Amino acid sequence: MGDRKTKFLEAYSVLKSELLRDPAFNFTDASRQWVDRMLDYNVPGGKLNRGLSVIDSYELLKEGKELTDDEIFLASALGWCIEWLQAYFLVLDDIMDGSHTRRGQPCWFRLPEVGLNAVNDGIMLRNHIPRILKKHFKNKPYYVELLDLFNEVEFQTTSGQMIDLITTLEGQKDLSKYSMPIHHRIVQYKTAYYSFYLPVACALLMSGENLDSHTEVEKILVEMGTYFQVQDDYLDCFGHPDVIGKIGTDIEDFKCSWLVVKALELSNEEQKKLLYENYGKADEASVAKVKALYKELDLEGAFVEYENASYEKIISSIEVQPSKAVQAVLKSFLAKIYKRQK
Amino acid sequence: MGDRKTKFLEAYSVLKSELLRDPAFNFTDASRQWVDRMLDYNVPGGKLNRGLSVIDSYELLKEGKELTDDEIFLASALGWCIEWLQAYFLVLDDIMDGSHTRRGQPCWFRLPEVGLNAVNDGIMLRNHIPRILKKHFKNKPYYVELLDLFNEVEFQTTSGQMIDLITTLEGQKDLSKYSMPIHHRIVQYKTAYYSFYLPVACALLMSGENLDSHTEVEKILVEMGTYFQVQDDYLDCFGHPDVIGKIGTDIEDFKCSWLVVKALELSNEEQKKLLYENYGKADEASVAKVKALYKELDLEGAFVEYENASYEKIISSIEVQPSKAVQAVLKSFLAKIYKRQK
Repeated sequence: MGDRKTKFLEAYSVLKSELLRDPAFNFTDASRQWVDRMLDYNVPGGKLNRGLSVIDSYELLKEGKELTDDEIFLASALGWCIEWLQAYFLVLDDIMDGSHTRRGQPCWFRLPEVGLNAVNDGIMLRNHIPRILKKHFKNKPYYVELLDLFNEVEFQTTSGQMIDLITTLEGQKDLSKYSMPIHHRIVQYKTAYYSFYLPVACALLMSGENLDSHTEVEKILVEMGTYFQVQDDYLDCFGHPDVIGKIGTDIEDFKCSWLVVKALELSNEEQKKLLYENYGKADEASVAKVKALYKELDLEGAFVEYENASYEKIISSIEVQPSKAVQAVLKSFLAKIYKRQK
Repeated sequence: MGDRKTKFLEAYSVLKSELLRDPAFNFTDASRQWVDRMLDYNVPGGKLNRGLSVIDSYELLKEGKELTDDEIFLASALGWCIEWLQAYFLVLDDIMDGSHTRRGQPCWFRLPEVGLNAVNDGIMLRNHIPRILKKHFKNKPYYVELLDLFNEVEFQTTSGQMIDLITTLEGQKDLSKYSMPIHHRIVQYKTAYYSFYLPVACALLMSGENLDSHTEVEKILVEMGTYFQVQDDYLDCFGHPDVIGKIGTDIEDFKCSWLVVKALELSNEEQKKLLYENYGKADEASVAKVKALYKELDLEGAFVEYENASYEKIISSIEVQPSKAVQAVLKSFLAKIYKRQK
């Protein structure tokens, strides 16, 4: 797959150089250099799983027929649109969260010459997506469906971010707002649509499929995205820092994590009181108390139970899918995340 | 025109209530209330000139045929999309500029319960535009052209904002960066496209016109938008505060105003030195020196000269337009801004 990733990265260079000479804007030298650097800093530095999965999915949908160079480039371009979308969300989320680092470097807005101008750079990243789509897909029969898809998924992600922000509103730290339905809603909208549904939907459109006839696929992928985020919440506390590559701070940050919601469900009055008193505090003693309660409530067991139930449910929904190729796409996604340790 | 504005405002209520029950998102009560309030706070409080001009332009393009209720609603919906776009830019610009008030009330992000979450609200405003377009225009033959139009104009505005931010980058106050070409480029992209071209382009699409055959109309409207912004720059210093409704601070804020650029053009070495030493300083004495120099260089005369030349140029471009209806639209725009005092 090294070759696949190389081609994917080559597509990035092509797309970037096209954007830097977009005829819809009369660049100054300084602005061209700014965008060039801003893109390199924010777009290609992640794991690229979302982007690469467009190509993988498209290949599976082609059922063994070899992809042409043109098809690889187009699938890569759609994959990069998702990476651009992700970069846009991350640049702006980091500002809202007051974060310091991202992907092992300072957040873009933390650079002294950038600051809050990063808001406009975030917007610029978002604006690049329709530029890429227009340049490479305007003549495709599914062009308008692509635009609608990206617009709808962006709207859903922004809406998910909104309920997350409202729920965890600073200064109103109130655990009683946290429940499984709200956790599920945040995760579904904020993460699952753009991370899981969008790559497959792009591949389906490229294959000539109509998205309206794949609402079941959407449901399954959103379910998988939810499962993925619950894993994330679990690993934040129970994963090994050396393996997951960071030290989790969900407890300190008063996050609406699956763990705290599950803990609230399982707690008696006394245990609830402990949670209310210690969740969202930065001192080590409070964090330790919360973690001890998580152990006491056997959240590890509850997670394994959730994981198995979720897996069974997803697998059986996949197996009633009429298309073997679609089944293969969904199973390939599931295989990548099932029982992951990082 | 009271009736026109009433109908326009009624359309806002319809659009808002549709957005608040958008089936693409599963609202919580709190998030529905949040969006409701956020929209009322940020969208309808401006002069609404951009939005209303879609209906006026469409009416002129219909050459006297009375508009149906459906046509008025659709033109209003497009007008509101421009107002939503404007609200999105303003919410985010205020954050980047660290502004305090907007339209006579605190900037949205200044409200204590909002803060930097306003970034997501800005994004939400932007996301509403394709939701409105999809709901009301998806079945129109010009739907895809509408999406492309809004995407392109947003890209141009964001690009104009970028060169403005780069040019006036804090801590690098350097007048030598300011020149007529850069001023023109900022104004053209940051203001003219969305304020002047976009409303007319929306009306043209609704009338069944192809935008590719109206590149000359685009040029003329961008020229008018540029003239409009030069007036704005002029009035900031020479307009009467009671008439323009604010006290200008472009000199203090080191703005790349038409006035300072013209002053640099007309200055001898000594006068240039004075500008370099005093422009962008907040104290009254520095501001007074800059204003005295503006008088000495007769920028009022230079502005009248610019205004007349610009008017003549625009009028003669309008008069060679083949369509009388298009001429009427353009002349109506020009009449609204020519020699305006506010």
